[in-house]
Amino acid sequence: MSAIVTLTSDFGGKDAFAGSVKGVILKINPQAQIVDISNEIAPQDIWEAAFTLKSAYSHFPKGTVHLAVVDPGVGSGRRPIIVVTESYYFVGPDNGLFSLIFQDAERLRVHHITASHYFLPNPGPTFHGRDIFAPVAAWLAKGIPSGNFGEEITDFVKLNVPVPKKSPNGIEGHIVHIDRYGNVISNIAYPDVQGLLPQGGDPGSLVLTVAGKTIKGLKKFYTEAAPGEPGAIINSSGYLEIFLFKQNARTALSVKRGDIIGLSLQPST
Amino acid sequence: MSAIVTLTSDFGGKDAFAGSVKGVILKINPQAQIVDISNEIAPQDIWEAAFTLKSAYSHFPKGTVHLAVVDPGVGSGRRPIIVVTESYYFVGPDNGLFSLIFQDAERLRVHHITASHYFLPNPGPTFHGRDIFAPVAAWLAKGIPSGNFGEEITDFVKLNVPVPKKSPNGIEGHIVHIDRYGNVISNIAYPDVQGLLPQGGDPGSLVLTVAGKTIKGLKKFYTEAAPGEPGAIINSSGYLEIFLFKQNARTALSVKRGDIIGLSLQPST
Amino acid sequence: MSAIVTLTSDFGGKDAFAGSVKGVILKINPQAQIVDISNEIAPQDIWEAAFTLKSAYSHFPKGTVHLAVVDPGVGSGRRPIIVVTESYYFVGPDNGLFSLIFQDAERLRVHHITASHYFLPNPGPTFHGRDIFAPVAAWLAKGIPSGNFGEEITDFVKLNVPVPKKSPNGIEGHIVHIDRYGNVISNIAYPDVQGLLPQGGDPGSLVLTVAGKTIKGLKKFYTEAAPGEPGAIINSSGYLEIFLFKQNARTALSVKRGDIIGLSLQPST
Repeated sequence: MSAIVTLTSDFGGKDAFAGSVKGVILKINPQAQIVDISNEIAPQDIWEAAFTLKSAYSHFPKGTVHLAVVDPGVGSGRRPIIVVTESYYFVGPDNGLFSLIFQDAERLRVHHITASHYFLPNPGPTFHGRDIFAPVAAWLAKGIPSGNFGEEITDFVKLNVPVPKKSPNGIEGHIVHIDRYGNVISNIAYPDVQGLLPQGGDPGSLVLTVAGKTIKGLKKFYTEAAPGEPGAIINSSGYLEIFLFKQNARTALSVKRGDIIGLSLQPST
Repeated sequence: MSAIVTLTSDFGGKDAFAGSVKGVILKINPQAQIVDISNEIAPQDIWEAAFTLKSAYSHFPKGTVHLAVVDPGVGSGRRPIIVVTESYYFVGPDNGLFSLIFQDAERLRVHHITASHYFLPNPGPTFHGRDIFAPVAAWLAKGIPSGNFGEEITDFVKLNVPVPKKSPNGIEGHIVHIDRYGNVISNIAYPDVQGLLPQGGDPGSLVLTVAGKTIKGLKKFYTEAAPGEPGAIINSSGYLEIFLFKQNARTALSVKRGDIIGLSLQPST
Repeated sequence: MSAIVTLTSDFGGKDAFAGSVKGVILKINPQAQIVDISNEIAPQDIWEAAFTLKSAYSHFPKGTVHLAVVDPGVGSGRRPIIVVTESYYFVGPDNGLFSLIFQDAERLRVHHITASHYFLPNPGPTFHGRDIFAPVAAWLAKGIPSGNFGEEITDFVKLNVPVPKKSPNGIEGHIVHIDRYGNVISNIAYPDVQGLLPQGGDPGSLVLTVAGKTIKGLKKFYTEAAPGEPGAIINSSGYLEIFLFKQNARTALSVKRGDIIGLSLQPST
C-alpha cells in the first residue's frame, strides 16, 4: 500500500497554505510521503491545474493519492469528490479539475465526499484544501476505502476540453499550455499528426502555422533547430510543441494560451 | 516521537540555502521528514515569517520541530534560541520571529542555544541557518532534551504586535498580510467582530472601510460577492479578510500591509 | 546505505517537470527521500546549476545521489553520465554541470550511461530528466553499482571555470553568482585574500573595487556595515562577497554576473 500523496494547487510558495495542508496530512498519517507536483498554478486556473496534473500523475506508483486544489467555488455548493481509477485516487473539488483524468481512465468511480467525521472539526468556508481535502487524502492514503467517504455520483463536472478539428488543408488545434522555458504546447497529438500524412509520408512535408508564422517539418531534437528559428517537435507527453533552441518561443512568437495552431501538408510541386 | 522538521525562511527557491539546511538535517538525522512551510518570505521580513509560521504550525503533529530563519542580524550578538511550548519546538534567531507563538502558548520555555558541540564545526558569520539552527533542529528531532542546548532565558525579543483599537464608531485594525490571491488580511479577529454587534445583532449591519472604500456586511463564501465588488469574510485563521471573487483585492483596492481597516455598525435609520 | 536523492534543475515550480521526475524515482524506489536543492535555475544556465550544486552537495549524507538536470542538448549526442566521488553519486548530462564537483573530488570516476534497460520504456528526445536520469538515480539509490550503467570515460566535459588572476596591485576576480538577497559573490576565495596580505597583515587595509565603487576592509558580520554602504565579507562558502545590510547590493551597485572585482592593498601613507 503506497502512502504517497501528491499536491497540485494554486497555493503558491509564499503563504502557509501548502504547509498547512501538509501538516494536516502528517498529523493523520505520519507515514505519508508528500510530493509537490505544483503549487504555482495561476490563481483559480482550473485548466492549468488539470493539464499539469495530467502531465505528472501517471508517473507515480500505483495507489498514489493525488490531491488537487484549485477551488474558486470553495464554501459554496460545489461538491468535494474522490475519483478512483484503476491505479490512483484523486481528491479535490468537483469543478472539472479532473477532466483529463476522466478521459484517461479505463475504470472510473467518483464519490461525493460527505462523511464529515473525516474532516477537520468545524471546517471553515474558505480553505477546504486544509479542512476537508487534506484529511480525506490522508485517510485514503491510510487505507480507508473510498466508499466510506460518500455515495457514488455520475453527474460530476467535466471541462469542455478543446480538441483539434479538420480544416480545409489539414487540422487546426490550439495552444493549451506554455511551459517555463516558453515552449508552446498544442492539443495536437502524435496520432493526429500521423493521420494527416499519407501512408509512409515524410513529416518533413508538414507545415505548421501559428501567429502568422510558418514552421516546416518536425525536429527530432531541440538542437536541430537553427538559432532564432522556431521548430516543432513531438514532446514528452506526445503532443506537438513549438520551441526555439535555448530561447523562449512564447515571447519570440508573441503567443498565448488559446491561440490557434494550424497543421497542413506542403503542396507537392 | 515525531521526527518532522518544518522550515520557514527567506531563503528563496533559487539558491542552495534551503537545500543546504536540509542536507545538514539529514546528515545528523536521516529519519527526519522535512516539510517546507515557506522559503519565500520577503528578504529580512521578520513579521511576514512570524505571520506565516503562526498560520501553519499548529496543524503539524505534536513534537514537530519548527525551524524558522529570517535572520538579518546573523553573526552579530542576537541570540540563537529554542522555544518549547506544550506541543512543539521552535528553533531560530531571537529577533521576534516567534512573537505570535509566545502569544498562543499556554506553557512556554525559551533556551539560549550555547552548546556549540551541536553546531557544525567552525560556524561562519553569515549562515547560521545551516551552521547552527539546522543541526540544533536535527538533534532536537532526534530526541536531545531542549535543556541540553543552553540555559533558559526570559528576556527574549517580542515584536510589537499590532492590535485593533476602539474608534469613535467601532474598531480600527490594520492590514497585517496580503496573500498570493491578493486577499487582504486584517488583525481584526472574529471575537472582535462579535463584540461590536449588539446581542443577536446582524453581521449585515457591519460597515468596513478601507482605502476610502466601504464594504457592507459579511459574506459566508467567496462566491457570494458580486463580480468586481470587494467582500469581507472571516477567513480560515479566524480573521477579517477582504477579497474580490476570482480577482485580486490588493490591486483592485491599491492597499498595502499596514493600511488601516475600520469596522463600524451601520446607523439604523 | 542512504536512499536520499537530491534534485537541481531548471524545471521551475510551475510545470509538472519536477513532480514527474519525483514520481518516476518513487515508482522504482519507494524508500527514496527526495530533496530539492533548487528547481529555479535560470533556463539552460549550466553554470548557475554547477554553482548551486557545489554550494549544497557536501552537506548531505555520504551516499546521497545528486540528480542535476539543466540540459539544453537533450536528445542530441551529449552523453548521460554518472559521476562517482569518494562520498557521492551525481547523475545528469555531460555538459559541464559537474565541473565544480570534478575540482573538489579526491577520487573520481565517470560512467557513460548506456544500459537502457534502466531507462523508462521508449525515452523521448525532450525530457531525459524524467526518462533516463530519474530512473538511473532511483536505481543507484537502490544499490545498483555504478559500473552496471555503462563504461568509464575520461573525456567528460568541463566548463572553463573562471579563476582570479594577479593584477598590478593585487588580484582580479569575477562575480560568479548573485543570490536572492542581492548579495554579490566572487570567485576570490579566502586563501586568495590571505595570500595578498603581508604576514600578519590587517584585512582592514584591503581595498575592493567593483563597478567604479571602492569598498575598504572586510566586515565580520553583515550588521557591521553602515546603512546604505556596501561591505565585503567572507561568506558561508569561503568566498569574498559584497553586500548591503538589509538591502540589495546587486541593484545598489548595478552589477551582474561576469563583472570584474578587483582586490588590492591600501597604500600605506
